[in-house]
Amino acid sequence: MRYAVLGTGAVGAALGGKLVELGHEVVMGSRTKDNPQALEWAQGAGPRAGSGTFADAAAFGERIIVAVNGRVAPAALQAAGETELAGKLVVDVSNPMAFEDGLLRLAPVESDSVGALLQRSFPQARVVKTLNTVNVAVMIDPDCVPGDHQLFMCGEDAGAKAETVSLLGEFGWPAGRVLDLGGIVEARDLEMLMPLWLNLYKRFGDGAFNYEIRRAH
Amino acid sequence: MRYAVLGTGAVGAALGGKLVELGHEVVMGSRTKDNPQALEWAQGAGPRAGSGTFADAAAFGERIIVAVNGRVAPAALQAAGETELAGKLVVDVSNPMAFEDGLLRLAPVESDSVGALLQRSFPQARVVKTLNTVNVAVMIDPDCVPGDHQLFMCGEDAGAKAETVSLLGEFGWPAGRVLDLGGIVEARDLEMLMPLWLNLYKRFGDGAFNYEIRRAH
Repeated sequence: MRYAVLGTGAVGAALGGKLVELGHEVVMGSRTKDNPQALEWAQGAGPRAGSGTFADAAAFGERIIVAVNGRVAPAALQAAGETELAGKLVVDVSNPMAFEDGLLRLAPVESDSVGALLQRSFPQARVVKTLNTVNVAVMIDPDCVPGDHQLFMCGEDAGAKAETVSLLGEFGWPAGRVLDLGGIVEARDLEMLMPLWLNLYKRFGDGAFNYEIRRAH
Repeated sequence: MRYAVLGTGAVGAALGGKLVELGHEVVMGSRTKDNPQALEWAQGAGPRAGSGTFADAAAFGERIIVAVNGRVAPAALQAAGETELAGKLVVDVSNPMAFEDGLLRLAPVESDSVGALLQRSFPQARVVKTLNTVNVAVMIDPDCVPGDHQLFMCGEDAGAKAETVSLLGEFGWPAGRVLDLGGIVEARDLEMLMPLWLNLYKRFGDGAFNYEIRRAH
């Protein structure tokens, strides 16, 4: 499968690297053709890895991974080009974060979310929100954390969610541990977990943790 | 110990009932002296239970439990009276929820929280946020859910947090499963979990669940 990974940070590099490792072809997209991090990543990841603009990546990918900061995700998809997104699975793993006076701030938040905003802005794309509640190590190696901890997923398109479950399965997530929360409006539920996640990260000193939902029944 | 439980809903009744069962004396407070739910609760809960206005309850209680909807919590504490709160442990278990067009809305949210607002408004009170992330059944009977699932807690006053851990211990929560998240500003982390909680509640069909944090190390 051909993937576009939009974003050159730690999340983009890890997801892109894992996809290449799994035998897929990946183009990492960024604002400019000559982004040094993207070039370096592509060189290190081998012959199935490439880099280019957001538009280059989206044109190449049969599936798109949104791994930029959530605040610039709409602009990244705009640059990718609406027609290049049409009909494709767009996996949004982003959180719309910034730090103001040391405090994590989310925008949008509560009344909206990046996931929902992307789906509204690109109605032909099949957006699925997932993976934004764990760090990169856990994303691509869930067994690094013990227990039957879960991932969440939401989106409008049942087929897109089934493809996502399959992709997450390649990453090591059993289908039974991917909870479908419903439509893309539920992306806010997931993005709103960031302040707690960051607090626990600071307290634990590392991000290799996840939540296992325990039920009485 | 003498407790004020502010609020006559399911949370107030359950926490008040548990406190009476544990041998404490409880006055349930509400806006009016003759609130039918408060009178009925007090009658059913036996000789150590009473009811009255928010001010009556606060004057009686050595500790205050805020079990009203978070949106009216500031008004409830205002009615209780600033001087009646001074120096006392104020346990805020509330969430500032309302439903608009079927969607859960929180106010305040993200840049502020009920917990932080209460502490700012009543600086002499020793506010601790906890218990707002689980339903009433789990609050007072954590063993109804299997596993080492956790509660969160935050507040400015170390002594108040130690008292809270002790109180939660009476409810059945081992001290090691009460995670101290830091100052009261972190109350937002906990209140922002409500949308996910509500989604899971709808999906599972009941609220008897909680999160167990699993760590790699």
